[in-house]
This record gives sequence, structure tokens and C-alpha cells, in this order.
Amino acid sequence: MPEFLKLVSIEEARQVLFSHIVVENLAEEEIETLHALGRVLSRDIFADEDLPAFTRSAMDGFAVRASDTNGASDSLPAYLNLIGEVEMGKAPEFTVSKGQAALIHTGGMLPQGADAVVIMENTQMLDSQQVEIHKPVTSGDNLILKGEDVRAGEIVMRSGTLVRPEEIGGLLALGKTRIFVFAKPVVHIFSSGDELVSADIKPHPGQVRDINSPILASLVESCGGIPVLHPIVPDDARALEDALRQIISDADLMVITAGSSASTRDMTAEVISHLGTPGVLVHGINIRPGKPTIVAVCDGKPIIGLPGNPVSGLIVARQLVKPLLKKINGQANQEINQVIEARLTLNLASVAGRDDYLPALLEKKGQEFKVTPIFFKSNLIFSLSRANGLIHIPADITGYLAGDVVEVYLF
Amino acid sequence: MPEFLKLVSIEEARQVLFSHIVVENLAEEEIETLHALGRVLSRDIFADEDLPAFTRSAMDGFAVRASDTNGASDSLPAYLNLIGEVEMGKAPEFTVSKGQAALIHTGGMLPQGADAVVIMENTQMLDSQQVEIHKPVTSGDNLILKGEDVRAGEIVMRSGTLVRPEEIGGLLALGKTRIFVFAKPVVHIFSSGDELVSADIKPHPGQVRDINSPILASLVESCGGIPVLHPIVPDDARALEDALRQIISDADLMVITAGSSASTRDMTAEVISHLGTPGVLVHGINIRPGKPTIVAVCDGKPIIGLPGNPVSGLIVARQLVKPLLKKINGQANQEINQVIEARLTLNLASVAGRDDYLPALLEKKGQEFKVTPIFFKSNLIFSLSRANGLIHIPADITGYLAGDVVEVYLF
Repeated sequence: MPEFLKLVSIEEARQVLFSHIVVENLAEEEIETLHALGRVLSRDIFADEDLPAFTRSAMDGFAVRASDTNGASDSLPAYLNLIGEVEMGKAPEFTVSKGQAALIHTGGMLPQGADAVVIMENTQMLDSQQVEIHKPVTSGDNLILKGEDVRAGEIVMRSGTLVRPEEIGGLLALGKTRIFVFAKPVVHIFSSGDELVSADIKPHPGQVRDINSPILASLVESCGGIPVLHPIVPDDARALEDALRQIISDADLMVITAGSSASTRDMTAEVISHLGTPGVLVHGINIRPGKPTIVAVCDGKPIIGLPGNPVSGLIVARQLVKPLLKKINGQANQEINQVIEARLTLNLASVAGRDDYLPALLEKKGQEFKVTPIFFKSNLIFSLSRANGLIHIPADITGYLAGDVVEVYLF
Repeated sequence: MPEFLKLVSIEEARQVLFSHIVVENLAEEEIETLHALGRVLSRDIFADEDLPAFTRSAMDGFAVRASDTNGASDSLPAYLNLIGEVEMGKAPEFTVSKGQAALIHTGGMLPQGADAVVIMENTQMLDSQQVEIHKPVTSGDNLILKGEDVRAGEIVMRSGTLVRPEEIGGLLALGKTRIFVFAKPVVHIFSSGDELVSADIKPHPGQVRDINSPILASLVESCGGIPVLHPIVPDDARALEDALRQIISDADLMVITAGSSASTRDMTAEVISHLGTPGVLVHGINIRPGKPTIVAVCDGKPIIGLPGNPVSGLIVARQLVKPLLKKINGQANQEINQVIEARLTLNLASVAGRDDYLPALLEKKGQEFKVTPIFFKSNLIFSLSRANGLIHIPADITGYLAGDVVEVYLF
């Protein structure tokens, strides 16, 4: 058996792949912040201004000089002269002097002279001229200070940050209506196999509809990439090599779902090895389903050969293509793997020395999760559409009993 | 205090809201399956045909009559005459008779006469005419039977199913290239407040940029809705009522972020109560941040009034607007809440009788999750952009110690 046919674990496959991927000099583009959801910042973001830009009241109440409230209580209130009301959205035109107070609303700009706000509940209006203060405040109370959120000049977000609603809010709060992000990675997708026809064609006996390409395209889309679908490639080394060579320079990633037989898989690996160096890095991963997976990098371009059967292909794609897309997307945020511990409803056997992943239905029962494996042959696509997660059986485990707690990876 | 000002829990708010929402007769549209990611099926899907459409080999090997392999072993192999090779994508033109075998590849169509496949590893080709069988098989071995995945006439997916890559694969495997889905819910978004200016305008002293509308728009987008942004509404009952009345018949949901002061919040509730019956259902939720939340249904249209400060607004929106969108989107799938148990790095105090949600940074350390609360005033939007989850402190807990395990809701 040639050296490159040795099986590696999925973690080793990821590591060797990632170690050959250079993510410097990714292309970037300038877009509207409002439409940046799911994109990745390509530059650090600096604040040009303080946020808030002025000291604001955090509560409804009265803007005062804190020293005027010393010792105030219900029985011995401080009496302050009401000099006006801070209008929302305007800089107050008055100054609060000793012995004075001004009505202020949450978010209102603190008037000159004042250094704290007494909340409404601790006051009593006597008339339009005078207010009683029933509790003392100290300087800064109930305020949000100028620059308390962000100071001008500060880096507020780093290159590599994934843009969520939270980031859109922060960017727009600073007036950054346009931002630079990494270009979406372009993923070229090929299905090969003499038995395949496009899903819009009625197959003849012996033929099946190609669903690998559309499944991968939607997965790529959901990970922020741009999928490009290609016509089905026949089981022919020359045809496959021609198809791949034509687009390798435009692709950020190429994914090929190879036929299921050993000969077509070997042919795919052979073709890939001609496309550049170092070529095929992994040929075979020690997981089930998903063993016949090829991982390659050719002259800097990652190429992944997935098993031809759709269920295996999708299980491997979620564990290999998805993290790779995040990497070539420039994303630096730590990823929280969505793993849930759940109690098995059935006994489950496994083979030691191999990581098993079983499609499963996870359900919440009261405070606890229950998980039921969906038994399947790896070609049955509908086993996946009943599943919402994968039970992971590590290589050193030979099985679980009903009632055992197992790890479930959420889709 | 009027009846409707009583605080309710977030669960009660969701329940009362959902109990007033009718999700029958949602609009539907026909779209291409390939572009259906994230949409929700509006009709049950029936299989028009068996899947697989023909009995296929699950392995590389030889198609045989199982009875011809009885008793075969390494020392006493069965000898079969090789009559041909099954070409991928074609119906074999020969029949396998007693004493015969045909070469077959994974996914190849089982020839007439054969009822099992012997895997390659258990055979030995003697010459181009004869093959040795070293292990017996029984009828059905190493096959995927016609109709084993799905039978013609079966319901394969129910109305209300969220379309993921898995569903796209299943639908296209059956040749369903176009499907009916529920129309995306249209969510009209209003920010009100005299202090607000649009984020593309440089604010004067006392003014702040409106970030609530863009944050909500991106959240709505990420949940599969269509956000419609409206110009900022001043703190004026008449202006707000006019703005809402104009669009209520077109909206599937209206979300208003009201000003932060008590008077503008009360004004918002008052305006909403004029728009239809039953009107305001909840005015005030017993969570922090997020207390000043309004939940209403007016003549069948849900209306949510969110706190004016962006952090509170977003925390409530994730817990109220997001599930509501799934409901008015027609989604029936059970939702797995992404809650992770993590060890606190700090002591954390809370007030009993109120559910607290604290933005926090969740990090994986080895096999365990650590979570660090990000201390914040609820107006500081950048506290959220450092967070990837919310620590939940239930109403009956007064605090946690460093090292305690807490529930963290993933963003």
C-alpha cells in the first residue's frame, strides 16, 4: 500500500490541510455596513470619535451638582431650583449652578455645571420652580460618560472579526457606514461519475440524479462562500483534469465528489496530484462514513475530494469544508463548536480504532436532551433529513449503552 | 399602577404573544430548490418514485446468485464464470444465471438474475473468464434495494420543515427542482426618539446615531425575514401612530424601538393600543436588561416595542423577535436552543425575582468551557461586540461564585 493511502484522523487531516494554506493577501472589498452580515472584517477598525460623544443621563431624573445633595433624605430633603428641562437631541443652553436642577430624560445630554443625575423616584416636584431631593448622589451617578464605551483612537474591532448584528451596531454607532471585508471565497464544485445526471433530468435505468453538487453549493452558501457549479464530469481522467485545470487559477477552493468505486477514487487522486505541489496530502480518513476522502493542496490551492455518496460527503464536508471556508474567509474569531451532551435512547455498537458519526435526532425532554440514532446505509439521503445532529463515537470506544451520555454535534 | 404594567417573565411574554398569533393561511411562493436554503416548506412533499429507482451495489465486487456461494471458503472456493462488467449509468444487458458472476462497481445497477454482491476482497480473479469466491453471501448482501430509502407515494417531508442542505439533497434526489415555501415574513422596523439621527449623518451635540434599526434589520435578515427600515420617528404620538397605521396592513410584524424615557415608552404603548384589538398584552418584562418591552397584537398583527437602548433591545430581540419570526415563518421543526454549560471565571451577583442576562465571552479550554461576564452598562454597544453569549441567571438565584457552572445562551 503506497504511503499516501495511510488513513489519518479527521483532526490530522484538518491540521495538515490548514498547515498548507496561506491566508495572507486575501482579496478585500468595500461594502455597506448595513449589508455586511456574515462577512469578515479585513482591516482593524479605529474609533474616530468618543462614544458616547457627550455625557448622557442613564436614567429619567434631575441633573444636579452632587455636592448639593449631600445628606439629603426623606425627612430632610435638599431643595433645588428647577431651571429647565433638557430637550432630547439638543445641547442644553443653560448651566446648572449651585442650588439648581434641570429635568433630564434617559439619553439626554448632561448640562454644563451638573455632574450627576438624581433618579425620578428619589425626588418630589413641589411646583414648576422647585424640586425636593430625597437621596444624595455622588459625582458621576446615573451618567454614561463621554468616551465610556469607546475612546477616539481606540481599535474597536480587529481584522478577522465576523460581522454579526452586534458588530453592525458598533460600526454604525461610530458612523462607519462602509467597511472593508474579505472577498467571499469562490468554491468550484464538481461531481464526477458516469451514472450521474443533473437533478432536472429524468434518469434512465442505471442513472441517478446528482445531488452532491447542490448539497455542497448550499453548504458553501451557508458558510459565506460563493459556490460555482460545474457540469457533471464523466469517469475519465483526462476530462476531469481538463475541467480542473480550466478553473484552478480562479478558485479559492475546489471540491470534487468522486465516484464511489475504488478505481474512480484512485483516478481522482491521480488527477489531483498532476495539478501542482505538494499535491495529495491525505488519501483516506479514519472515520465512518467518509473514509474515501482526499485532501490536497496544489500550488497553494486547496482541493478536497469527497466520497461520492451524498451522506458521507455531507458529513465530511461539515467537518472539513466548513472550517476550511472559515479559514480562507479570513475569520479569526474562536469558533464555539455546537456540541450537546445527550442521553442515548438505544444501545449503539461501534468498531474501535475509527471515529464513527451517526446521524441522529436530538430532542429536548424537560431539562435534558435525548438522542436517537437514525440507522442508515450511507447512501440514504433521507436518513439525513430526519436528523439534526451527529452522534460522535470516538475511536477508542467500542459502543454505548442506552442511557449513556454521548456528544452530539449540531448541524 | 394599571393592570397592564405588571411585569411578566420572558416565557410568559412569549406564551401570551404566541397564543394570539394565527399562522394559518400564510402566503406561499414557488421557488427553485437549489436556492431554498433557510426557507420553510409550505406543503408536504410526496415521493413520486422509489429511491433508489433500481437495486444498486453498495460495494465494489461481483454480482452473483447467493445460492452459488453456499459454503465457499479460502480453502474451498466457489468458481463462477465471469460474463461481463456492469457499466456505471447503464442497465446491464445481460442476465446472471446459475454459476455466473458479473463485475460491478459501487452504485452500479444489479443485473437481472443476481441477488447479492460479493465484495472484491473476498474474491480472486483467475483469468478474464473465471472468478473464485472465498466467502458465502446471502440474498440481499451488499445491495441497496429499490425503494429502500423512500417508496413512491410516501410523504418524505412535512409542511413546516426548514430547508437545510440535507433537505435540498433529498428533494433533488426525487427530481423536485421547484418547491412551495412560505413567503418570507416582512418586518417593518421603526426607531423613535428626538435624539436620533440616521447613522450616515454626523450627530450634533445631544444627538446620537440610530443603530437600533440596522441591528434589528440584520437580526431579521439572519432569521429569514425581510426587514423594511423606516425613517426615524420623532417622540410624538401622532407621528408614530400615522407611521404605523400606514404600513400595518402590509406588515407581518412591526418592531418599534421606543425612546428610553418612561414617558416615551408609555406614549408608545398608548399609540399601539389604538391600532387594533386586543392591543397591548405585555408592558414590562421581568428581565434585566430589557424590562421596558411592549408586546402587542392588533387585529392579528404582532407588534413589539423594544427598549430604546441598543444592548437591551438586542438581548430582548434575540429572545422574543427571533422565535416569533420562526413562528410566523411557518417553521414547525423543534428548535434546539444552543445553551452551553460553562464554568464561571468570576463571582457574579444578581437580584432575586428577576431573570438576568449578561453578555459574556465563552471560551473552550481543553474539554471544558469557561465563561467570563462582560460587565457593562446597557447602553454600551461595544460590550456586545466582545461577547459571544449571554449568561442566564434565573429569577430564583441571587448570584454565583467563580467556578460555578452556569447556562450560557449562544448568540
